[in-house]
Amino acid sequence: MEWVVKVGGSLFLEDAIEFCRALVGKNVIVICGGGDFANKIREYDADTGFSDTAAHKTAILCMDIIGMLVADKVDGAEAVYSLEDAKKVIGNGKLPVLLPSKLFEYLDPLEHSWNVTSDSISVYISWLLKSKILIVTNVDGIYDVNPSLDGAKLLKSINAKKLLNFGESSVDENLPELLLKYKLDCYVVNGKFPKRAISIIEGKSSISTFIEVEKNFNL
Amino acid sequence: MEWVVKVGGSLFLEDAIEFCRALVGKNVIVICGGGDFANKIREYDADTGFSDTAAHKTAILCMDIIGMLVADKVDGAEAVYSLEDAKKVIGNGKLPVLLPSKLFEYLDPLEHSWNVTSDSISVYISWLLKSKILIVTNVDGIYDVNPSLDGAKLLKSINAKKLLNFGESSVDENLPELLLKYKLDCYVVNGKFPKRAISIIEGKSSISTFIEVEKNFNL
Repeated sequence: MEWVVKVGGSLFLEDAIEFCRALVGKNVIVICGGGDFANKIREYDADTGFSDTAAHKTAILCMDIIGMLVADKVDGAEAVYSLEDAKKVIGNGKLPVLLPSKLFEYLDPLEHSWNVTSDSISVYISWLLKSKILIVTNVDGIYDVNPSLDGAKLLKSINAKKLLNFGESSVDENLPELLLKYKLDCYVVNGKFPKRAISIIEGKSSISTFIEVEKNFNL
Repeated sequence: MEWVVKVGGSLFLEDAIEFCRALVGKNVIVICGGGDFANKIREYDADTGFSDTAAHKTAILCMDIIGMLVADKVDGAEAVYSLEDAKKVIGNGKLPVLLPSKLFEYLDPLEHSWNVTSDSISVYISWLLKSKILIVTNVDGIYDVNPSLDGAKLLKSINAKKLLNFGESSVDENLPELLLKYKLDCYVVNGKFPKRAISIIEGKSSISTFIEVEKNFNL
């Protein structure tokens, strides 16, 4: 797989489905965020206080649920539990959507905490596969300030080190640390415009934010 | 296992947790409904129209999620994927909470449709285990009319055949048909009063509805 494409839970499900339709036939594996389901667990967790492991595992199941639903509605997509199956699916000209629960049951490489979310899981898979990574969200990329504020400017690129202490952004808090750890650059792009993602996958430029990692930087 | 106790998704999660605490040490296996998570899938399904299989499988994952969260908060409870593990857990004086996704991946005995919900799954498990079944909901049992209406009367017992054409009740539409098919009687009880369930499990009577199946009746 040349690309891991992480389709964020912030996108409406219909937009995520539409976006994935544009990816069929490309050399990519899709990983979906847990969306409303993961938010429901956060909400319950705030009330009830589950163990980190229970919250982590159930949040990963939410990624399976969204992945299954997306794969169900995209002709040419197939839900897979393993990277081996993902490769077979791409070999057949189809789009694999990874349901990460089983893989992470065996691997369990990441801290069990709310800091580690679907972005982090996607970075880890990207590192395993030696793939590039594209994070698809509901805004155009990372902004200098909260994108809902007047005058917020989209950043064409940002250093991952700088993003470490950036406060709120459109990516998970834990993402820059993991990009640095695994020495992976990353694109952030708006899922409502599938052509932008396709451009980047095809090596062209488009509206996005590029998160750059200095390869000689050690965390 | 002497009893399958199906803890309905209509109960608040806190009530479900409290209820299960009372069951630790009894000879029962708990199965949880998909609650808010399954409702979210229904909502998405109404908008987007998934295949029956995608809706069925994701709804079962919702039962895993609630089961994991409940088991996490009950001292002495343990989440299990298999009936073998459930037996071991009971042998250790603990309460098994079944996460049904893996078992149903292998068995797949039930129609894939929204008619088949967690009640039906629990009846099937009950039949597999030759256990009795208790369905725990957020009302006192089955009423002659909608329990929110003035003058609604709780039924002490009802014939499963009669329930077939009963319209709305506090149990799944598909439940009476499955009880008849598997020749299983069933109790319906309010989860907000754990002592009622304990009484029934101990062979005493309590406020509940008994759904009776004539054993010589063939569907």
